[in-house]
Amino acid sequence: MTRTAGELAEYLHAALVGDADALLAGVAGPDSARAEDLIYLDSPRHQERVAESGARCVLASPGTRLGGKTILEVRDPKLAFAKAAAWLTLKSEAAFGVHESAVIAPSARLAPSAFIGPYVVIEGGVEIGAGSVIEAFCFLGRGARVGEGCRLHPRVTLYPEASLGDRVEVHSGAVIGSDGFGYVFGEGRWWKFPQIGALEIGDDVEIGANVTIDRGSLETTRIGNGVKIDNLVQVAHNVRIGENSVIASQVGISGSSTLGKRVMLGGQVGVADHCTLEDGAIVGAQSGIATGKIVRQGQTVWGSPARPLEQAKKQFASIARLPTLAARVRKLEERDEE
Amino acid sequence: MTRTAGELAEYLHAALVGDADALLAGVAGPDSARAEDLIYLDSPRHQERVAESGARCVLASPGTRLGGKTILEVRDPKLAFAKAAAWLTLKSEAAFGVHESAVIAPSARLAPSAFIGPYVVIEGGVEIGAGSVIEAFCFLGRGARVGEGCRLHPRVTLYPEASLGDRVEVHSGAVIGSDGFGYVFGEGRWWKFPQIGALEIGDDVEIGANVTIDRGSLETTRIGNGVKIDNLVQVAHNVRIGENSVIASQVGISGSSTLGKRVMLGGQVGVADHCTLEDGAIVGAQSGIATGKIVRQGQTVWGSPARPLEQAKKQFASIARLPTLAARVRKLEERDEE
Amino acid sequence: MTRTAGELAEYLHAALVGDADALLAGVAGPDSARAEDLIYLDSPRHQERVAESGARCVLASPGTRLGGKTILEVRDPKLAFAKAAAWLTLKSEAAFGVHESAVIAPSARLAPSAFIGPYVVIEGGVEIGAGSVIEAFCFLGRGARVGEGCRLHPRVTLYPEASLGDRVEVHSGAVIGSDGFGYVFGEGRWWKFPQIGALEIGDDVEIGANVTIDRGSLETTRIGNGVKIDNLVQVAHNVRIGENSVIASQVGISGSSTLGKRVMLGGQVGVADHCTLEDGAIVGAQSGIATGKIVRQGQTVWGSPARPLEQAKKQFASIARLPTLAARVRKLEERDEE
Repeated sequence: MTRTAGELAEYLHAALVGDADALLAGVAGPDSARAEDLIYLDSPRHQERVAESGARCVLASPGTRLGGKTILEVRDPKLAFAKAAAWLTLKSEAAFGVHESAVIAPSARLAPSAFIGPYVVIEGGVEIGAGSVIEAFCFLGRGARVGEGCRLHPRVTLYPEASLGDRVEVHSGAVIGSDGFGYVFGEGRWWKFPQIGALEIGDDVEIGANVTIDRGSLETTRIGNGVKIDNLVQVAHNVRIGENSVIASQVGISGSSTLGKRVMLGGQVGVADHCTLEDGAIVGAQSGIATGKIVRQGQTVWGSPARPLEQAKKQFASIARLPTLAARVRKLEERDEE
Repeated sequence: MTRTAGELAEYLHAALVGDADALLAGVAGPDSARAEDLIYLDSPRHQERVAESGARCVLASPGTRLGGKTILEVRDPKLAFAKAAAWLTLKSEAAFGVHESAVIAPSARLAPSAFIGPYVVIEGGVEIGAGSVIEAFCFLGRGARVGEGCRLHPRVTLYPEASLGDRVEVHSGAVIGSDGFGYVFGEGRWWKFPQIGALEIGDDVEIGANVTIDRGSLETTRIGNGVKIDNLVQVAHNVRIGENSVIASQVGISGSSTLGKRVMLGGQVGVADHCTLEDGAIVGAQSGIATGKIVRQGQTVWGSPARPLEQAKKQFASIARLPTLAARVRKLEERDEE
Repeated sequence: MTRTAGELAEYLHAALVGDADALLAGVAGPDSARAEDLIYLDSPRHQERVAESGARCVLASPGTRLGGKTILEVRDPKLAFAKAAAWLTLKSEAAFGVHESAVIAPSARLAPSAFIGPYVVIEGGVEIGAGSVIEAFCFLGRGARVGEGCRLHPRVTLYPEASLGDRVEVHSGAVIGSDGFGYVFGEGRWWKFPQIGALEIGDDVEIGANVTIDRGSLETTRIGNGVKIDNLVQVAHNVRIGENSVIASQVGISGSSTLGKRVMLGGQVGVADHCTLEDGAIVGAQSGIATGKIVRQGQTVWGSPARPLEQAKKQFASIARLPTLAARVRKLEERDEE
């Protein structure tokens, strides 16, 4: 949908310097932008690239002037850009309807405004809310629930009873609600511990491609509102993730661990079982949190096993100097022997 | 299927204290259990929760008494619970038949009691044994073999010729029998080394969501009976895994490595190529086993590169004290200079 | 297709010692080879196995003689074997045509020699080149492009606009062109940064099972010609990978990092954002490259955080001796106190 710079300024509560009638049709980076693309400037380093961009309208800090460009003055240009992007690219075309090839159990309840793509399979008792888009090859097991305004990209599996809130986006290949990993050894073989708990995913969650999230064993796996999960992440049974936490790619979170709100995990982090990461905890990439550990509110940790950041940095620096240290000890020993 | 406490006691060879006619319809955790759910008690820590549970029947150690509850006395309550769960939830409804949308080559041989879900594709020469369940969107390539009583959740790929034993469960998104990763560089480009070997998976194996297991290059990749593999694990070409080994999430096992029986790998472990992990070896989470290494029978190792557990613990402790050690050496040097 | 040893010798520019009319129908390992399988010998360690093999023809170094076997003399037997395997197993049967169950938008343009398997979904504006094979359950989003001679195994997702060159092979479960992971926090919630850039994959690329590759955010994610990517690898938005680079399983490459040509990453390596790995850089398994780091041309690094290989080896050796070093310092202190 095309908007004017003036309309966008109003939406963003931004001061406008320039042409309020300039048209905006999308967003872009400064190098590839066309006249009707919105761009942003959030660092003096990029001033030249932005000034030379083909775009007519720029989100920038108050006071910024860039030749003939129309400026929308905002305190946080990158945030405003993200908000503007969502607003400018609102789907005007309302794709809905059910593809004739979808296999849908009679007891499923689908909102009339839902879109069901080709070769979707929907089992009995499934509920899908208004405006949700279920793309090709999605499988929604018996009793699964999808809220309003969700989007399941092609090839998403919801195991039976998995529940998604509103405005949840799930990328291709994700498996939601699979059995957790628990066995008891006896009589010469592994017996599967029951994996029959629930999986509840809140609102405004985004789940990356080929992610796996297990249902609870006897309890419930819970993903809070606003949580963002990158590709190839593993979330085990009975894990609870607090709202607005952010989980980078290839992280693994083991059984029964709890993350508070706004926790951030870097790429390839491993959280062992029964850990507690309190609100605002930050874990550096590739770190490992050992079984049962607690990371305190707002604390940043790093390394495997993880230590408080400053301590970890000192350790890594000490390790780098270790061969030198050994040589110094040898020297002291020699002088001692003299 | 509903059973009585008396029937279950007989199945488990448990002594029953209480009402042998109490009905049992399933299993649960103590907090969410209803009257007809079976629960278990395996630690005094949980005694209060269990006593207050809505469940009428409890698996517990001999001598345990919990108010009016019916007790089934067993030596290992958690093991008995797992066994009881499998027994109580035996599918009584025999879902079988072939969904009309499945595409099945005429030369495939399907047991009459197999279930083939919607949008399954089965190529020529495939064999599927009695009672196996192949859910939606599974792809079984030319000549693949599925034994009896298997369950392939939706969206499992078996590459041509992949072979599963009996009672194998494969979760959604798993890819079984893909090409291994091997190339030879020459004349300015990579030439693919042939990946035409076999893949043989034994009986009673469980494979997690989005796992990848490669066929052999010229030889055979073998997964032994009773092996359990968690989500997002990678098993490379020519790997052999001995029976009852347990592989946690996000582990990677490189080409031609061999695991014995009852080997246990923690989450995110990396095993390089041509390693040998003998029977009962245990590898701690995030550890790395370097190319060609041998982990001896029953040995526990940890770290990257992995060391015997006690040594690894000492090393990690030493590293934590390293900044202090450096300061002590500095002090010795100063006194030495005096 | 069956060939003779003489024809193969001509194709490989190899000298032939023995029977030029010996028939060749495939390749194999020495233990499982039948008479018409080609095998190779590239190490004296395997000489006995090869001599006892059922195969009649062997690729080997000049001067090798093995009883009655026909020898094709080549400088690099393993390379010649890979080349011969590709040549001997060239598909003679030209499978093409469109399965009746495929859902194909009218505006898609498919080469007449393309093969489209069952339950493929092809959206508007998609282009597929000559001889490409699109197997079951593949999803090709609006405007995606597949060059000539490609092979998409079952269950591959191409997000809209993703572009593959010629002779690209993509294994089952891979997700190509998904949204990158970028958000801006404001007003109490995460706003998604636009993920609307492009994804361009060159020629002769192979992509493993369940790999995820994100499109650019505002720019372009680029995978160069001849790149080989193993299973379960994550490639984030705006990453560029130079030609003939090789990425082992479970590697994660974060946003905006750049790899030069012939870069090699071991299994489970993590490359943080905005890193530069120059041509020929080699990163050992499980290593971590910290944000913004540069690995110089031809350099080998190892560890997390990664160091030059020799330095890393010294560090690991020093760490192994650390408990001893601490004891030595304690001894010096004791003598100092005396």
